[in-house]
Amino acid sequence: MIGHPTFVTEPWSVRETSLDLDTLAQTESVFALSNGHIGWRGNLDEGEPYGLPGSYLNGVFEIRPLPYAERGYGNPESGQTIINVTNGKVMRLLVNDEPFDVRYGELRSHERCLDFRAGVLGRQAEWVSPAGSAVKVSSTRMVSLTQRSIAAICYEVEPVNQTTRIVVQSELIANEQLPVPGRDPRGTAALTEPLVEQADASRGARAGLVHATRESALIVAVVMDHVVEGPPGTLVQSESFPHLGRTMVSTTLEPGQRLRLVKVVAYGWSGSRSLPAVRDQADAALAAAMQTGWEGLLAEQRSYLDRFWACADVELDGDSAIQQAVRFGLFHILQAGARAEGRAIAAKGLTGPGYDGHAFWDTETFVLPVLTYTSPDAAAHALRWRHSTLPLAIERARQLRLNGAAFPWRTIRGEECSGYWPAGSAAFHVNADIACAARRYVRATDDTTFEQTIGLDVLVHTARLWRSLGHHDGNGRFRIDGVTGPDEYSAVADNNVYTNLMAQENLSAAADAAARHRDCATELGVDDEEMTSWREAAASMVIPYDQMLGVHPQADGFTCHEIWDFANTTAEQYPLLLHFPYFDLYRKQVVKQADLVLAMQLRPDAFTPEQKARNFAYYERLTVRDSSLSASVQAVIAAEIGHLDLAEDYLAEAALMDLDDLEHNTANGLHLASLGGIWTALVAGYGGMRHTDAALSFTPRLPPALTRLAFGLHLAGRTLRVEVSGAEATYSIDNGKPLQLLHHGQPVDVSADQPATCLIPDVAPLGPRPTQPRGRAPHRRHRTRM
Amino acid sequence: MIGHPTFVTEPWSVRETSLDLDTLAQTESVFALSNGHIGWRGNLDEGEPYGLPGSYLNGVFEIRPLPYAERGYGNPESGQTIINVTNGKVMRLLVNDEPFDVRYGELRSHERCLDFRAGVLGRQAEWVSPAGSAVKVSSTRMVSLTQRSIAAICYEVEPVNQTTRIVVQSELIANEQLPVPGRDPRGTAALTEPLVEQADASRGARAGLVHATRESALIVAVVMDHVVEGPPGTLVQSESFPHLGRTMVSTTLEPGQRLRLVKVVAYGWSGSRSLPAVRDQADAALAAAMQTGWEGLLAEQRSYLDRFWACADVELDGDSAIQQAVRFGLFHILQAGARAEGRAIAAKGLTGPGYDGHAFWDTETFVLPVLTYTSPDAAAHALRWRHSTLPLAIERARQLRLNGAAFPWRTIRGEECSGYWPAGSAAFHVNADIACAARRYVRATDDTTFEQTIGLDVLVHTARLWRSLGHHDGNGRFRIDGVTGPDEYSAVADNNVYTNLMAQENLSAAADAAARHRDCATELGVDDEEMTSWREAAASMVIPYDQMLGVHPQADGFTCHEIWDFANTTAEQYPLLLHFPYFDLYRKQVVKQADLVLAMQLRPDAFTPEQKARNFAYYERLTVRDSSLSASVQAVIAAEIGHLDLAEDYLAEAALMDLDDLEHNTANGLHLASLGGIWTALVAGYGGMRHTDAALSFTPRLPPALTRLAFGLHLAGRTLRVEVSGAEATYSIDNGKPLQLLHHGQPVDVSADQPATCLIPDVAPLGPRPTQPRGRAPHRRHRTRM
Repeated sequence: MIGHPTFVTEPWSVRETSLDLDTLAQTESVFALSNGHIGWRGNLDEGEPYGLPGSYLNGVFEIRPLPYAERGYGNPESGQTIINVTNGKVMRLLVNDEPFDVRYGELRSHERCLDFRAGVLGRQAEWVSPAGSAVKVSSTRMVSLTQRSIAAICYEVEPVNQTTRIVVQSELIANEQLPVPGRDPRGTAALTEPLVEQADASRGARAGLVHATRESALIVAVVMDHVVEGPPGTLVQSESFPHLGRTMVSTTLEPGQRLRLVKVVAYGWSGSRSLPAVRDQADAALAAAMQTGWEGLLAEQRSYLDRFWACADVELDGDSAIQQAVRFGLFHILQAGARAEGRAIAAKGLTGPGYDGHAFWDTETFVLPVLTYTSPDAAAHALRWRHSTLPLAIERARQLRLNGAAFPWRTIRGEECSGYWPAGSAAFHVNADIACAARRYVRATDDTTFEQTIGLDVLVHTARLWRSLGHHDGNGRFRIDGVTGPDEYSAVADNNVYTNLMAQENLSAAADAAARHRDCATELGVDDEEMTSWREAAASMVIPYDQMLGVHPQADGFTCHEIWDFANTTAEQYPLLLHFPYFDLYRKQVVKQADLVLAMQLRPDAFTPEQKARNFAYYERLTVRDSSLSASVQAVIAAEIGHLDLAEDYLAEAALMDLDDLEHNTANGLHLASLGGIWTALVAGYGGMRHTDAALSFTPRLPPALTRLAFGLHLAGRTLRVEVSGAEATYSIDNGKPLQLLHHGQPVDVSADQPATCLIPDVAPLGPRPTQPRGRAPHRRHRTRM
Repeated sequence: MIGHPTFVTEPWSVRETSLDLDTLAQTESVFALSNGHIGWRGNLDEGEPYGLPGSYLNGVFEIRPLPYAERGYGNPESGQTIINVTNGKVMRLLVNDEPFDVRYGELRSHERCLDFRAGVLGRQAEWVSPAGSAVKVSSTRMVSLTQRSIAAICYEVEPVNQTTRIVVQSELIANEQLPVPGRDPRGTAALTEPLVEQADASRGARAGLVHATRESALIVAVVMDHVVEGPPGTLVQSESFPHLGRTMVSTTLEPGQRLRLVKVVAYGWSGSRSLPAVRDQADAALAAAMQTGWEGLLAEQRSYLDRFWACADVELDGDSAIQQAVRFGLFHILQAGARAEGRAIAAKGLTGPGYDGHAFWDTETFVLPVLTYTSPDAAAHALRWRHSTLPLAIERARQLRLNGAAFPWRTIRGEECSGYWPAGSAAFHVNADIACAARRYVRATDDTTFEQTIGLDVLVHTARLWRSLGHHDGNGRFRIDGVTGPDEYSAVADNNVYTNLMAQENLSAAADAAARHRDCATELGVDDEEMTSWREAAASMVIPYDQMLGVHPQADGFTCHEIWDFANTTAEQYPLLLHFPYFDLYRKQVVKQADLVLAMQLRPDAFTPEQKARNFAYYERLTVRDSSLSASVQAVIAAEIGHLDLAEDYLAEAALMDLDDLEHNTANGLHLASLGGIWTALVAGYGGMRHTDAALSFTPRLPPALTRLAFGLHLAGRTLRVEVSGAEATYSIDNGKPLQLLHHGQPVDVSADQPATCLIPDVAPLGPRPTQPRGRAPHRRHRTRM
């Protein structure tokens, strides 16, 4: 829980004021640039030292066999692993005879800064070579949000104390050697030399490489061009080899003189188009970007982000670190989704190879809520990607002998890639999560075309899945047995409350949507009988309840299980999954991540306030948060129940997950779900926002330390702005139809020329502050408060 | 369900009257010879054609990595696989210019016969070569029950129609090429060239090879010697190579002349002794056997078997096929255990590589009951082997964060080799099964030394396991959550009735044994407090019961699950595990093998007769018998409930499992558990034998088709002989202390000079004949009866 020692708290950037080689991999994730199509980790320009080199293209993966000690029907035989594509970031620098390397010589100063409004990563360093030549190096790097195939670097060198021979080698490097992955199951699979040479070429200040992957048969083209400014006599030459493209710039600089290179890199890839087509596509993108020029790219980038922040920004007074974190989170969420267009948003975005680059339910449940209200087009793209995998999900359902569609637990292209079914395919809730995200998008945008086509298709196929997965028992109750809920320390249980509640809504919503869009539904083969069967299943859904304890068991029997021996579990034994067998975790009351508590967030209607308070207190005692998907959810429900300080602690944990590397694996990539969770903890937590078919409601209430919270939401073409202080909340919209919302349960009308200001009622928390397992309480954000 | 077309029904042998190349692998298993130390599959003498070549040494295995698509704490990282050791069976024959090969030329006659009393496999063939030379070949093969390192062959050739040049090559072949294994998870792992050459030598009619295994680092020595009888001028020469030892005998025979070779093969192996020591051990065994000579080996073999059959034989009048089968079963059970001495009895014995040569709970639950009463020394050896692995089981328990010992689900040497924990390590019942087998042995033999040492040690460590695996819930009831019972179509459930009942007895018995042997228990650290905690756990053990249905659910919630859609499951979809995912099987009411029904056999005291009848009828409707561990158990309970004809059907299924290849995988080795189950179905089924601490009881009752059943049991130094006819049963003992037993609930006293004859009461079956899932009813043994 130690914050990164050299990050400065600033409202609109993450600034690192000196270089710490031990946390290099973490900072490479934090400083990663992406537009959802290209991802460049924040590796140092000169390539070395590195924590983990990483350049990614969304959807570029290799297939690897999934081995099993014992075979089982339905186990996927191959998986998909994100690969490190050609590295276009490298700018090697020779200072007189010596390579610029921060490990040698003297690094007088080093600063990196990720600017959320400019959308660039800046770097300034002053270095003295072992032989005594001092240079200043500065670089600015971007992955363009406006030109999706383009990344660019402006690199400048300037000698400080003497005439210096300078060589800059701007490179494209394929098949970089990667560190050997560790044994943590949350890491990535090792793939050596995934790229097979197809072509290479160079000319003037340009060079390009084309490669193919072996099994997944994708073609990847990378080309670069340069604008070089240096003193007369500066020599520029390019060459190419199978795995190396290189433009070398050599010159001699006096102190005060400067060498400046603008490097523009264009990536293209395809699984269906020919090599010449992919090569030409990259060349064309490069030509366009060269025409735009560095200043033009910078201006476009800032303008794109200005538009984003205009609505999406969340302002918070009273905690500058959280203020920074929520913008950091929004920036990375935007980077992950902005230009994904037809591809997945992975759990780590394109910031690292963790989880093999797979997308999980995280996307729909933790990332899309944010994008839906802050960048609805990106949300629509992500949902369209899911929908594009529907044929594979239908095929998977058939393989599992189920109806409808079974979306994969983890995937890159759409095929199930989970090699451990109890925590993979059995987690069918992913299907309801997808349906829920599609409905959320329609609710927020009123996009009826989307609903009629994609939304209905997803709802119908997921409803069919649930109908065939569950059954009516002897008493007519609809049960869903033997599936895995969100909590990964339980598996294969009967009637997981989260799953059943989400499936219930999925079934009803499918019937409702089919009724609204009769013709489209008929085309999907839906008839009255099927709709009735969905409604009946929803109406008779089993929701277990432990009368004796007065709480909902996470699943049948859960509250009868032995409570984990927290007293004898040491700090070093967390995360538990690395130190205890699954069989032991599954059979005891210990919760990795919000499950029943998440159900209370997503199905607020299914619980009374008292049940919420009792359930929350019960599960707080069991939840160890060995997952980054938990703290934000706990923040939301803690806030709802009135434990505003506890909510603040969880908010901070979600907010600092990556900036402070709380789970010690930010090195492998950022935790997008947790980054999205910061926004959710503020908007749905302190803002109390809930958006159901029935109403858009807010129950804003701030803890004493926070004096102001303001956020904007895209709502069907307008922006709703919510301003919350300790005493009152103001709701305003910028244009369009008036809006009715609920403020602490009271209807409030807002129109473009009539904002509404409402008092915030004073409410005592329901019950005492809940306690957590020994050693697992969240860090107290404000120790001095009682 | 088609019987092998060319097996003749004979009381004391299995005779095959012609050769069917399509069922070669099955017959190689049926005709396998073993003494528990060496196993030779019934491959043809000349080596080819073969179904699956196989020569095994108990305990000789190779280590292989167990791969996982996703890592998990506690998953074993390496497994053990039985290897095909040096083949000493091969006798190649050259007839003039042509190799004797049944696939070419004309096979005029071919007969093989496994003789249960002689303990040999005989073969006679008459063959005409493509060029027209006719020869008669006969061989007799044995694996010695009296000299455990020895196997031997007597091989004779005789020309029929012309002067014939004959060459016999008697060989030792290492690293035979094996067929590629299929995808069936019940098969074996592929290991190519497991044997690494260490030494080879030849001299006169002798040759020998010494090899080592790579990872398991075992040394295996094989030597052979010959006695050759042929016409003058017969030439004998031997040679050796790294993977081949060969003695070549060449001669020319006139019709009426004969060449006769006696080949004696000695195997030695060790994981701790040096190469010279292992080589000398094999040479010494060979010298001894050569001194005994072929006739001497034959005589010893018959004498050993005479002693075995004197008590163990089961006589059955009215069904000659079952009569044959029960002796076939007893013969193979004896072969598997006779000389295992310090090694496991694997699920397939040493008859094939199925299940990687692993031992499971099958040994203790299905094989040892037979050996305990028919060959108690072999049972003691098997239990001593388990006990020798206790340190590994203690270590495994520690790894799983449990107390006591956790014996492996599958193993060769003692380490857990299960690579799929829900159907492996989670099946903790194996520990109670081992404890139960140890208690059964003590009960049958009164071997108090064994009880004080091995028995107590096993009981204490397994009781400690159960105490730490279960917990007292809020109501004080002792629950065992999240474990897997015998039925492999369910997994990781709470309070599996079989497991809980077996654990209950395990806990009580450990406390009782510790009380009987205070000093020994104290040495194991057992104190009053621990004993009390065991008794309390046993006393408050949760045994779920479904009041509404009036049956015991197999585990919590089982009877609420969806019933498998048997109506839409086709015959080709069995076994279900090859066509449906585990997740679907686990969550529905479908039973692979007796689970609750086995509980009723092993814990008869825990159920009322009415409960037994209702439970049996309920589970009959759900049990598909995709396992060979089921039919015999169903036979026992069907008989108890009075469904004598249904019991007969199940008895026949168990009896013909391998002779008729009912599961289509006898090719990989015999189903020892089912072979043992034949005896159990007769003795515990129609004989109604139950042996508890309280009493030895019988409830004999025969179906109309069977007119007489007689069997013997070793009981504490005497033999109890039970003779059952339709009307009465006679109990007699041959010597020693008088015996009190229960006959249909009535006490009966038997002494050496006072047999007891008792009438058999007429009892109606409890309820109508239970029904089975569509297409899964057992074959009706007697269709004509109503």
